[in-house]
Amino acid sequence: MSADAVSLPGLAWHENGQSSLSGSLLRLERAVDRIFLSWAGTWSAEEYRFPTFIAARDLARLDYFHSFPHLVTFPIVLDPDDENLRRFTTGEPLADDGSVRLAATSPIRDVLTPAACYHFYAHFCGQAFAAPQYLTTRNTCFRREAYYAPLRRQWGFSMREIVCIGSAAEVEAFLETTRERVADFFGRIGLPIAWAHATDPFFNPTRNPKYVAQRLEPVKTEMVFGDDLAIGSVNFHRSYMGEAFSMRRGDEEAYSGCVAFGLERWLYAITSHFGPEPGAWPDLGVSDP
Amino acid sequence: MSADAVSLPGLAWHENGQSSLSGSLLRLERAVDRIFLSWAGTWSAEEYRFPTFIAARDLARLDYFHSFPHLVTFPIVLDPDDENLRRFTTGEPLADDGSVRLAATSPIRDVLTPAACYHFYAHFCGQAFAAPQYLTTRNTCFRREAYYAPLRRQWGFSMREIVCIGSAAEVEAFLETTRERVADFFGRIGLPIAWAHATDPFFNPTRNPKYVAQRLEPVKTEMVFGDDLAIGSVNFHRSYMGEAFSMRRGDEEAYSGCVAFGLERWLYAITSHFGPEPGAWPDLGVSDP
Repeated sequence: MSADAVSLPGLAWHENGQSSLSGSLLRLERAVDRIFLSWAGTWSAEEYRFPTFIAARDLARLDYFHSFPHLVTFPIVLDPDDENLRRFTTGEPLADDGSVRLAATSPIRDVLTPAACYHFYAHFCGQAFAAPQYLTTRNTCFRREAYYAPLRRQWGFSMREIVCIGSAAEVEAFLETTRERVADFFGRIGLPIAWAHATDPFFNPTRNPKYVAQRLEPVKTEMVFGDDLAIGSVNFHRSYMGEAFSMRRGDEEAYSGCVAFGLERWLYAITSHFGPEPGAWPDLGVSDP
Repeated sequence: MSADAVSLPGLAWHENGQSSLSGSLLRLERAVDRIFLSWAGTWSAEEYRFPTFIAARDLARLDYFHSFPHLVTFPIVLDPDDENLRRFTTGEPLADDGSVRLAATSPIRDVLTPAACYHFYAHFCGQAFAAPQYLTTRNTCFRREAYYAPLRRQWGFSMREIVCIGSAAEVEAFLETTRERVADFFGRIGLPIAWAHATDPFFNPTRNPKYVAQRLEPVKTEMVFGDDLAIGSVNFHRSYMGEAFSMRRGDEEAYSGCVAFGLERWLYAITSHFGPEPGAWPDLGVSDP
């Protein structure tokens, strides 16, 4: 166990940067998601369940591969040709170090979802909206990192998002009202959170005009626990998604924004601030289903 | 849209063999999972949430790569070396056909979960149980197929499992009692389901001694809707998982078995038999959360 490991009832940590949940920790995770859903409910947000993979073509519209090549995880399969599969099954599929001895593979056309809300923009590509859209979704998201730590930095983690697609004013009102609700909640349960402007984790940032633009005009505000753990963020995309996916609101390019929550990081913040015992956790104000 | 496509409110089908759910279809999916949880509840089954990836080493214990190389999907990432990432971001990351022009990649040590219950055996590896274990979990599972069809045959799909690890008699009683409960349910709601012995979809089956053994002594019984759609199965592993993962029950090798449900296939069976309108769906006997 590294110094980064946490020992919590109901948490099992895996070397591959993921965790398993059970018992009181799984129940806490469900309660936390019900809080997010209650905030989504104040906007009558429509819920969607999206798949694990998103088409590489859709991410290319966001210039994702130039901006975040260090984070991306692809799904890959063996070329299904019989001879190729026979070759793969001859001998040992795994090397001594546990790595897979791949045979020929099929072309890759997909990416493991890196952010839950991207699916909405692909889903609504080309649409014109007569009213603002309030939406919510939850997905397992994947980001390769230089190191992993239980609940705090995982290869696979759970993200809940509440999204608005609308006019600039509609999206700004959505983001500000939701931010206030979340801040009130932190105050009520006594979780110390600082709000801080941030930038996305671009590859080679100083050479990326999008990073430079984010530095000049902040569009991302993080909910920071402790020194530097962002357990959520409020993101104003301006018309970036609207342009990339040809979405319109009335006669204009649609604006969009999202409030995103990292479920495992909320578990870390709550159990680390209030302790591992469920009896010491605050009343989250949501009832059991 | 192929002849295999279904058109249902709340269903969006993706070329990459996955579906998105919303509206009444997403609500039906939740209700169906609550039925499964109610059956798990009759065993006081403990729920676990497992990750998307499972270590290739764990699947190798089950000889998975020799038996199912045609089904497996791996997660792969770019070698994080700066020069390699720079090479990837130079020019177009995607070819004209939407496939990714990979740069050098890191070794693969994981697999996208092909069956929800495998995580339990890896989790309890080396344990000796003084009592039978009743467990449940749900996960997105991944199997490459030669073709995909909405809800019926997906690259990524949702699987709920109820699992027993115990003595041979405990596991057999669990499987038979659960099978009866499920059969009663089908009778009550009027969904026509045939129960049929089946084998796992082995690669090169006639050369695989495990396939031959399954033919001689059936251990898998499927819940078949229509001509050939298995919407669930009852599986008796005998001591196979117990031996592969050194689990014991009392003084003996542990036995195990699982009842598995494919969520999307249940949606297909219900909407295809009762029609696409929620008003025509049967009362599933579970209340809204």
